[in-house]
Amino acid sequence: MDNNAVYDLVIIGSGMAGLTAGLYAGRYRMKTLIIGGDFGGEGTTAGETSNYPGFLQIDGFELMSKVKEQVDALGVPFIDGRVERVERRGHCFVVHVGSHEYISNTLLLAIGSKRRILGLPREAELKGNGVHYCVTCDGPLYRNRVVALVGGGDASVKGVNLIAEYVSKVYLIVRSKEIVAEPINTERMKKLGNKVEILLETQVKELIGGKRLQKIGLSMPYKGSSELAIDGLFVEIGADPDTRLARSLGVALDEKGYIETDHMMRTSVDGVFAAGDAVNHFGHFKQYVTAAALGAVAATAAYEDHKIHGDLCQLHALPVKVSAQKGIT
Amino acid sequence: MDNNAVYDLVIIGSGMAGLTAGLYAGRYRMKTLIIGGDFGGEGTTAGETSNYPGFLQIDGFELMSKVKEQVDALGVPFIDGRVERVERRGHCFVVHVGSHEYISNTLLLAIGSKRRILGLPREAELKGNGVHYCVTCDGPLYRNRVVALVGGGDASVKGVNLIAEYVSKVYLIVRSKEIVAEPINTERMKKLGNKVEILLETQVKELIGGKRLQKIGLSMPYKGSSELAIDGLFVEIGADPDTRLARSLGVALDEKGYIETDHMMRTSVDGVFAAGDAVNHFGHFKQYVTAAALGAVAATAAYEDHKIHGDLCQLHALPVKVSAQKGIT
Repeated sequence: MDNNAVYDLVIIGSGMAGLTAGLYAGRYRMKTLIIGGDFGGEGTTAGETSNYPGFLQIDGFELMSKVKEQVDALGVPFIDGRVERVERRGHCFVVHVGSHEYISNTLLLAIGSKRRILGLPREAELKGNGVHYCVTCDGPLYRNRVVALVGGGDASVKGVNLIAEYVSKVYLIVRSKEIVAEPINTERMKKLGNKVEILLETQVKELIGGKRLQKIGLSMPYKGSSELAIDGLFVEIGADPDTRLARSLGVALDEKGYIETDHMMRTSVDGVFAAGDAVNHFGHFKQYVTAAALGAVAATAAYEDHKIHGDLCQLHALPVKVSAQKGIT
Repeated sequence: MDNNAVYDLVIIGSGMAGLTAGLYAGRYRMKTLIIGGDFGGEGTTAGETSNYPGFLQIDGFELMSKVKEQVDALGVPFIDGRVERVERRGHCFVVHVGSHEYISNTLLLAIGSKRRILGLPREAELKGNGVHYCVTCDGPLYRNRVVALVGGGDASVKGVNLIAEYVSKVYLIVRSKEIVAEPINTERMKKLGNKVEILLETQVKELIGGKRLQKIGLSMPYKGSSELAIDGLFVEIGADPDTRLARSLGVALDEKGYIETDHMMRTSVDGVFAAGDAVNHFGHFKQYVTAAALGAVAATAAYEDHKIHGDLCQLHALPVKVSAQKGIT
């Protein structure tokens, strides 16, 4: 990696959108840096997928690794850090990771979303001690145990299908009157028979236990009891766009709180682009293939805008010296 | 395949958009039929690609075959025919392929684009006899021969890089002052050295030869001559959206002649969706990954609309008997 560099493009995020943007930017020969955060983003937590065109079935982490390999082959540098803040300095964007600063002409926010939590007392404390947010990651811990899964969407049903391979029993706790999932996934769940118990119009009201979760309190009694003894609870109630960095740059959000973009993924701030789960381009429909397409589009728009405007960000025009970058490897 | 069926969705086209739509519709358990036309669409003619996320390098035909395999695994029927016309009959769409009729609640137009021709005298007659429109398909015929390629875009440069593997010499004939291509492809072309000769601001004015092409007439002399002796000519000057079927249904087009859609790929006609190269959702940026995403989005919109409206198309409400379908296999 080039120290003291001014990048053409810094991509924040390494999910499907960020990596595909890196792939295209690399082909455009833009001086690009990807700042990874959680490698692979949501993509790595989704388990096996059969709906990404090109693979009959592939594990999310494996798919992300394959795209990363393409980015690596183009020589696009990738760092693992987490971005604390971004700021504008003259015509430059300055991205802070730990004590390092990365300076760029353009910025692509592919920072995805944050998993929703239940918001119950003791939830943070019991996280990892019976309360989990990723079936793919933590499901195998519950071999032959009893678990509950909260949520009524497609990810929940996929979660049930996956965890059923390990556990002896899974309760699916659904707030609404019905489950809304891909029919192919619902069918698969039905075939699991009485290993799966579905509790509709029910919410988790309380997390009960010592150091580990032991029971959950239910909003509606199940088999005469408002408490359910389980070994583990998996929360799959969706995600909210992570727009902290966008807001700090003054990027406009839409009415649902997602980053607003035009059809080429340009945000309201010149030089700032966005892609992936933090934008709402196709409404609630968020898939590997849509994230990839939006990442490719955003990188293309950044490339075209950078060709037109040239290097607006000039090191010598910066009011502070950039020797702070020396430590970067 | 179910004879006398009323489909939930008929997809016209089997390029990346149509196949991905089939993949999603199959997962949604919609009663779906794909009518293929040219299998794989533009995708199969593009040769090796390195910009589809998930594959370091893959041949276009192989990629299309992999997606087809996913569609097949879901049991979505696929026929090879070419659609002559479509019409509305009550609340149904009737799709004519030869003497057969296919009846559906919704329709997805993923019919892509038609390659542009030069529009010169004798062009149709010399097609296949020295005049070609697909480097991947016909390039290998010209081993150790001299060819010219017309066009100044990315597909032309990719075409030069590909055909250079076979031929002894390739002239790239570019109408404008410069070539606009992905830098990674331009770099690769430069490495071919004097095997490639670039003629800027030049057009092909005439196709000269007997049964086969022998020479082309140039708008600007090259090395003192306005004729260039070649063995083969490849035309790579882009494509226009194929909107014949869309227009016959009264679907609105945009100012550039592409099918107009909203962000979920709904056209101006209820029940008709579009995706792929026949729409202009991301402007001139048309890639495997964008076609795939738009196909997935269109199938999702068709699924959601069909869930809301139900089976508006009822066989018994059709004014003609459907026994015409009996012959379908």
